[in-house]
Amino acid sequence: MLFLFFKGKLELNQRKEGEKVGLIVQKFGGTSVGSAEKIKNVATRVLEEKNNGNDVVVVVSAMGKTTDVLVSLAKELSSNPSKREMDMLLSTGEQVTISLLAMALAEQGVKAVSYTGWQAGISTESIHSNARITKIDTKVIANQLAAGNVVVVAGFQGISEAGEITTLGRGGSDTTAVALAAALNADKCDIYTDVTGVFTTDPRYVKEARKLLSVSYDEMLELANLGAGVLHPRAVEFAKNYQIPLEVRSSMERESGTIIEEEASMEQNLVVRGVAFEDEITRVTVLGLPQSITSLSTIFTTLAANRINVDIIIQSTTAEDTTNLSFSIKTESLDETLQVLEDNKETLKFNRIESEVGLAKVSIVGSGMISNPGVAAEMFASLAKNQIQVKMVSTSEIKVSTVVEKEHMLNAVQVLHETFELTGAFANA
Amino acid sequence: MLFLFFKGKLELNQRKEGEKVGLIVQKFGGTSVGSAEKIKNVATRVLEEKNNGNDVVVVVSAMGKTTDVLVSLAKELSSNPSKREMDMLLSTGEQVTISLLAMALAEQGVKAVSYTGWQAGISTESIHSNARITKIDTKVIANQLAAGNVVVVAGFQGISEAGEITTLGRGGSDTTAVALAAALNADKCDIYTDVTGVFTTDPRYVKEARKLLSVSYDEMLELANLGAGVLHPRAVEFAKNYQIPLEVRSSMERESGTIIEEEASMEQNLVVRGVAFEDEITRVTVLGLPQSITSLSTIFTTLAANRINVDIIIQSTTAEDTTNLSFSIKTESLDETLQVLEDNKETLKFNRIESEVGLAKVSIVGSGMISNPGVAAEMFASLAKNQIQVKMVSTSEIKVSTVVEKEHMLNAVQVLHETFELTGAFANA
Repeated sequence: MLFLFFKGKLELNQRKEGEKVGLIVQKFGGTSVGSAEKIKNVATRVLEEKNNGNDVVVVVSAMGKTTDVLVSLAKELSSNPSKREMDMLLSTGEQVTISLLAMALAEQGVKAVSYTGWQAGISTESIHSNARITKIDTKVIANQLAAGNVVVVAGFQGISEAGEITTLGRGGSDTTAVALAAALNADKCDIYTDVTGVFTTDPRYVKEARKLLSVSYDEMLELANLGAGVLHPRAVEFAKNYQIPLEVRSSMERESGTIIEEEASMEQNLVVRGVAFEDEITRVTVLGLPQSITSLSTIFTTLAANRINVDIIIQSTTAEDTTNLSFSIKTESLDETLQVLEDNKETLKFNRIESEVGLAKVSIVGSGMISNPGVAAEMFASLAKNQIQVKMVSTSEIKVSTVVEKEHMLNAVQVLHETFELTGAFANA
Repeated sequence: MLFLFFKGKLELNQRKEGEKVGLIVQKFGGTSVGSAEKIKNVATRVLEEKNNGNDVVVVVSAMGKTTDVLVSLAKELSSNPSKREMDMLLSTGEQVTISLLAMALAEQGVKAVSYTGWQAGISTESIHSNARITKIDTKVIANQLAAGNVVVVAGFQGISEAGEITTLGRGGSDTTAVALAAALNADKCDIYTDVTGVFTTDPRYVKEARKLLSVSYDEMLELANLGAGVLHPRAVEFAKNYQIPLEVRSSMERESGTIIEEEASMEQNLVVRGVAFEDEITRVTVLGLPQSITSLSTIFTTLAANRINVDIIIQSTTAEDTTNLSFSIKTESLDETLQVLEDNKETLKFNRIESEVGLAKVSIVGSGMISNPGVAAEMFASLAKNQIQVKMVSTSEIKVSTVVEKEHMLNAVQVLHETFELTGAFANA
């Protein structure tokens, strides 16, 4: 039933202002609550939703630069602060915001009550700095909603079985919002941010970028992982698992955002939905590995054990019965990667290592690709026609990623945006 | 046994550095933890006590001006913020300090763990902004001490039965420290502050002021209530009730402070232990009250219901069968006091009100007074000899307070400090 609401035509997808939908979870990030003025604005947005006849649960992050200030205080005191104490420290940021927002709501005549993560019944794993939510006891929140209160919940935090304050790591407040929406069986989860929605590509670099009316969870996952940055992949996965419709929208502008749901009902004729990109990519090539069955698993197990994230992997066999292995990493991990490989040279038995910095990744994403086998070929042809050399390729069912030289990145994005007719293909709202 | 330790001679009262006494609760106020540097200094002080072989529980306040910053943020959002949300907001201040101190301790090689009020098992009344501690469950702290950890606890805060975060009001961190000392059966509670101890009078105004080696709980209560300001009366009362020896000492200087215990064992020959004073006092006189049995109780019940604190009260009967009533208040309460009285004129049936601003209170305190009936007379004589007019008088068993004109205040303090031989009567450490 939840899901049905977003099926069908555009008119049903885009909720009309004033339309009653029951229970809404709203999430406002750090920039949306960065000052007293901005908190007042958030209170107004909550009031509007309340005036529409909806019950509202609001999840907020720490104000603007609060987290940075706390982190630098910690660094003044310790070169390697304990994760437990960092969670204790950082969780105060959201606690400040919830109380201030509750006050701002009361000032606007809205009955509101704030709760920290532990008070809101958000249980997590007993892991600090990157815990996953294990359970939400909605009793307290449900009681407050029943009493007509807006419930303001601190994002990013929870409590472990032992009663320790934990935090959820990057994108934690998005995850809190989606998890609460799932636990409370909310009708919708609105993610308010500083952009007006999800775009075909980054509008700061490509002026023809268009806002998407809707994308599927899977597309959003690829876009999120590929650095689109508006929504954390963990939160998208959570929403997909529990079929929570999300809307990414602006906290300042009063226009509809981008709906994220199971099937993108609009624009289905579009094979490619967006072009994502990120720079500061490095390719590392390990030469002369023995052709044993275990050598591939050994090398990536070693890298993973040292928390080095590897993205694209390419293996090629040489004439000398050895294997050359290339993989891409973020450039910031290069020194550590080289160190780890050298430290394990005896076990891994490779010959030597080469690396190439100054690369970038450009990817096209769209669930329409599954039934369109020519998409990757069209992408390569288009890049070749524009003298852009592809250094590495990786594909999934709904994505093709290429590694190119960094200086060609924006050109590649522009070219692909045109090739796949994303430019001006649909309206901006 | 606890108490015995501080009985007897001076040598036993003043703990030698390095002497093992078991479990010590240390409390550091906002100025002592006002920066990363100062938190490092606090960690050093904790380390020293740990190196003496003691178990240590540390109670800290919010860093320096944190509370002020949070209060002004709240004021930007609400003219009258809810006390519940203010407690939610302000309690973050101590939570920041505990985590930073735990990190600073770890950096100095001291195993430490931080706890908020609710984690530390501090239960309070279900009242916001001024709750009293009702119960302390010491299980968590005791376990951590047994594991060899220094336990850092957030002062000023607790949790109500309903799971709400509460704060203890003014002097709350002092109260937390003393209450924990009582609950844990600690050997001593050290209150670290920005002065080196309790003085015979305020050393900022009277250069002959001397630090007291010890004062009794009752004397400290009078001194605290009379504006000496180093220690909150609630904390002193708590310490008295549970016979917890306190030491007020400097967080920066490494000298002994002032011991507060049942009987001040030193300086018992001194009749007067200190001279306290405060300015901005106003005398209000209500003229022509009917001489009914209830008029006195009615007037002060009315003032109390409006949260106006009345200090000294003097009643005099006139020839016309009416009563004149004078009382002293803080000058900041004058407007409200006059308003309340005018609003209730019909009930109270008085004739008119006079008020005199620009007054000050000067008091002498000392448990030796009980057995020395001439002390008040000596005080008045000494003030008269110096042309200082006494406008109001109030006495208790261990205190005589006088109200004088503000311009005479410091002269009166100086004169009394000499009269009762406090100047240079004992050494400064």
